[in-house]
Amino acid sequence: MTQHRIAVIGGTGPQGKGLGYRFAKHGHDVVIGSRSAEKAVPVAAEVTERLSGVEGAGEVSGAANADAVAQADVVLLAVPYDGHDELVAALPLAGKTVISCVNPLAFDKRGAHGRIVNGGEGSAAESAQELAPEATVVGAFHNVSAVLLWGDDDYLDEDVLVVGDVVEAKEVAMDLAESVTGRRGIDAGKLRLARQLEPFTAVLISINRKYKTHAGVRISGL
Amino acid sequence: MTQHRIAVIGGTGPQGKGLGYRFAKHGHDVVIGSRSAEKAVPVAAEVTERLSGVEGAGEVSGAANADAVAQADVVLLAVPYDGHDELVAALPLAGKTVISCVNPLAFDKRGAHGRIVNGGEGSAAESAQELAPEATVVGAFHNVSAVLLWGDDDYLDEDVLVVGDVVEAKEVAMDLAESVTGRRGIDAGKLRLARQLEPFTAVLISINRKYKTHAGVRISGL
Repeated sequence: MTQHRIAVIGGTGPQGKGLGYRFAKHGHDVVIGSRSAEKAVPVAAEVTERLSGVEGAGEVSGAANADAVAQADVVLLAVPYDGHDELVAALPLAGKTVISCVNPLAFDKRGAHGRIVNGGEGSAAESAQELAPEATVVGAFHNVSAVLLWGDDDYLDEDVLVVGDVVEAKEVAMDLAESVTGRRGIDAGKLRLARQLEPFTAVLISINRKYKTHAGVRISGL
Repeated sequence: MTQHRIAVIGGTGPQGKGLGYRFAKHGHDVVIGSRSAEKAVPVAAEVTERLSGVEGAGEVSGAANADAVAQADVVLLAVPYDGHDELVAALPLAGKTVISCVNPLAFDKRGAHGRIVNGGEGSAAESAQELAPEATVVGAFHNVSAVLLWGDDDYLDEDVLVVGDVVEAKEVAMDLAESVTGRRGIDAGKLRLARQLEPFTAVLISINRKYKTHAGVRISGL
């Protein structure tokens, strides 16, 4: 499998840190990105510590977001949806394979639900593609549990659904999914279907609350 | 398990016919509904024929939609989204438990995708609830494959996700799910999350096309 150098934007948050850990555990170099290098470096050290003794693990370092992107061939966007557009517009993403796992969610007393992006005709991933037209954006890893990512199981019992308009970029995310689930990711279609993958996380959060678990999605029939 | 008398509105279509077959196979009486009794009766006969020799199977009959509803305690809405609102508004649904598996989808050269209901702040199930305020509407069975429903496997390797605002009505759908999957349905939260379940079918259709299969959703971690 191709070894990548992956910038994790929002790498100090639980989803980004957990995915960065899994990618590095399987030999990819990971640059944890944050607003400032000062915030990123201790998290990189924490992940490095966690990987001590793991044979073949990649290197994990920390950097300010734009510096992290500059060093990487693959960029994982793992930032909160609030401020997402401004952040993405400011990053030097041209020429990069960009994987968005951003979930535009809202919470109220009835639970989690999807936020409406562009009147229902958009998604965080599509917004990223519009804001970074010279990057190739795919959507993936929306639904994996941050708790389980940082947990002790070798692999998560979930499938990673990958959407995008460029096959080669989808292949990168599908390959990286193996680091997380032990199985290749599933090609789930065009980028616009990120409109479905992103808010599906609200359904899983709802199930988690009801059943006191960390639910994930598996696709049967493959 | 409680035995129900279930009107399947849109029972001559593949999803409705397949679900009606599974429910009747497990002892529920099913009334196949269609625009006219003349269209419903032959489909009811086809399902009855399919059930010959199945011990404990329920009775399957055919009727015009409104007559089917009048006879039933549970109503399954399995109609196309086009014309859905007008049809639902005309049905005598007051007091019934209504299960919607309606998928507002559109298709173009890039594949299946979700249709925007109420600017993204709605779903077919929520529309049905608004149009029939004295019924109790839940959403379920959106993602089960019509081909597999009519197929020979005892059970589908899928989970049925149930959303709704009234627990007792969700319980009915969760129980009925056992007829289809051999497992109880999963309480996936409030009715508004039908906004996520309905268009997720577009993701499965996309996977089906890519992998030449009949994909389904399983929830891990339960």
